[in-house]
Amino acid sequence: MLSSLDRELLETVADLHEIPMGAYNIRKNGEKEGRNTTGNIDIVTKTDKDGIDIIIKPGTVGESVHIPVIMSSSGLKDTVYNTFEVGAGSDVLIVAGCGIHNPGEESSEHNGVHEFFVRKGAKMKYVEKHYGEGEGQGKKVMNPKTIIEVEEDGVVELEMIQIKGVDDTLRETEVRLHKNAKAIIVERLLTYKDQFADSRIVIELEGEGSSAQVISRSVAQDDSVQKFYFNLVGKNQCMGHVECDSIIMHHAKVYSTPEISALHQDANLIHEAAIGKIASDQLIKLMSLGMTEREAEDRILAGFLH
Amino acid sequence: MLSSLDRELLETVADLHEIPMGAYNIRKNGEKEGRNTTGNIDIVTKTDKDGIDIIIKPGTVGESVHIPVIMSSSGLKDTVYNTFEVGAGSDVLIVAGCGIHNPGEESSEHNGVHEFFVRKGAKMKYVEKHYGEGEGQGKKVMNPKTIIEVEEDGVVELEMIQIKGVDDTLRETEVRLHKNAKAIIVERLLTYKDQFADSRIVIELEGEGSSAQVISRSVAQDDSVQKFYFNLVGKNQCMGHVECDSIIMHHAKVYSTPEISALHQDANLIHEAAIGKIASDQLIKLMSLGMTEREAEDRILAGFLH
Repeated sequence: MLSSLDRELLETVADLHEIPMGAYNIRKNGEKEGRNTTGNIDIVTKTDKDGIDIIIKPGTVGESVHIPVIMSSSGLKDTVYNTFEVGAGSDVLIVAGCGIHNPGEESSEHNGVHEFFVRKGAKMKYVEKHYGEGEGQGKKVMNPKTIIEVEEDGVVELEMIQIKGVDDTLRETEVRLHKNAKAIIVERLLTYKDQFADSRIVIELEGEGSSAQVISRSVAQDDSVQKFYFNLVGKNQCMGHVECDSIIMHHAKVYSTPEISALHQDANLIHEAAIGKIASDQLIKLMSLGMTEREAEDRILAGFLH
Repeated sequence: MLSSLDRELLETVADLHEIPMGAYNIRKNGEKEGRNTTGNIDIVTKTDKDGIDIIIKPGTVGESVHIPVIMSSSGLKDTVYNTFEVGAGSDVLIVAGCGIHNPGEESSEHNGVHEFFVRKGAKMKYVEKHYGEGEGQGKKVMNPKTIIEVEEDGVVELEMIQIKGVDDTLRETEVRLHKNAKAIIVERLLTYKDQFADSRIVIELEGEGSSAQVISRSVAQDDSVQKFYFNLVGKNQCMGHVECDSIIMHHAKVYSTPEISALHQDANLIHEAAIGKIASDQLIKLMSLGMTEREAEDRILAGFLH
């Protein structure tokens, strides 16, 4: 049974106001809470380890899969392995958030290993939102690992967002692109207090005509620390572009290490990174409209992380 | 005695058509070949290890020091430690190239460790050019290590150029900037055949108001490999900008890893990197003016590395 707290977590991490249409699998405190499959999308519990196989038939267009994870106990450590087979020529939305409500003093940790096989010509939009909350001092820890293989002419669009309340995270993303395959990755990350976030994105542009775009935006507040490592590896005629911007505030620290590796004469790779504080002219403009400094800051940060 | 070959090397690496005016120290095959000091600039042989101390009096303006190193034997391994004291308020040019003519089959290697103390309000322009040539298969190896401490209001401008003919190089540059100190670093690097170049530049922006700009341009041809690692570490209110562009050709490989580390809320750090091939529209334009493809390529590369 989903409590009202569970429903709030689901709404935050998976935009679910009610039980979703289409295929879904809701995991709560390490157990299956609910599941639905459709004619085109099957969900099968793994037998060798904890997790599910999501199998999307070739040619499945306009359908979605929601696989949110929610945790509401303190001191729980949950690890799950999910495998996605996105059939050739399909066009689907996959939503996979994680929300932790930790009421106590012990750490609650979710480790999600997601492996995707995006077959020939398939399109996948993948949305992952992370959110933590709770009355106690128990940490909310989330370590997502995302491995994506995109076959010829496939397109993946990833939206990976750490909304708030995650104390510790190691976010690992690996994408391999074959001929004419394309990846667009948008990352949004907020840390504050003494939170720590480490994000690593490696994209291998293996196929001729493959392309990748990464846009990473983060805000680091208080005493939080963020580390970014990106690597675009161009092994063929390809295009790659990484753009990462961080706003740093208070006593926060941001380390940004974006590597580009050109292993082919027709690899075209660009990287841009910037770390700085909120533009003072923006602050002044909003304050001249009657906002307090704090309100103006919040407005700018919300726009930046939108 | 300087042979005509020596004179050619000196001209290439230190723009010296004859014995320079002002202070100089010429090192040939690991030995002192000539030296001149002036009323303001003293050069003293180190007693504890191989190398010299260059002592520039406070307030020395408009003078230069040339300290070229040339090697013309095969199988020589030369390591030298030079220390530069650039007195407060002075404004000087220091030229420190290395030219190796390796006539034989054994490696010739020069390792130069240069340490600079740029005192309050001093300005230093430092030019370092590396060049190798030779009839045999013996490698030309150069490993420069450059450590620079820039005191309050000091300004350093570095021009570090690997002209050609260097088979293997590890270039390490460390700069520490104090209050309102400024560094401008321009690097130019060409590799071809199976040459390998590794360049590491770390700039610590320690003082309030310090600023750094790094512009790195490289061309990687044939089977050569280039690795770049830059790190701007902002520890105070500061500005830092790294811009690195590489042209990749043939079967060359370029790995570019520029890190920016913001450890202060008023650190403003930007990095841009791009790796790609020669723009085809530029090639076509030059070829339409009557150049062969090869001539057009050479013209574009020369402009890029200028």
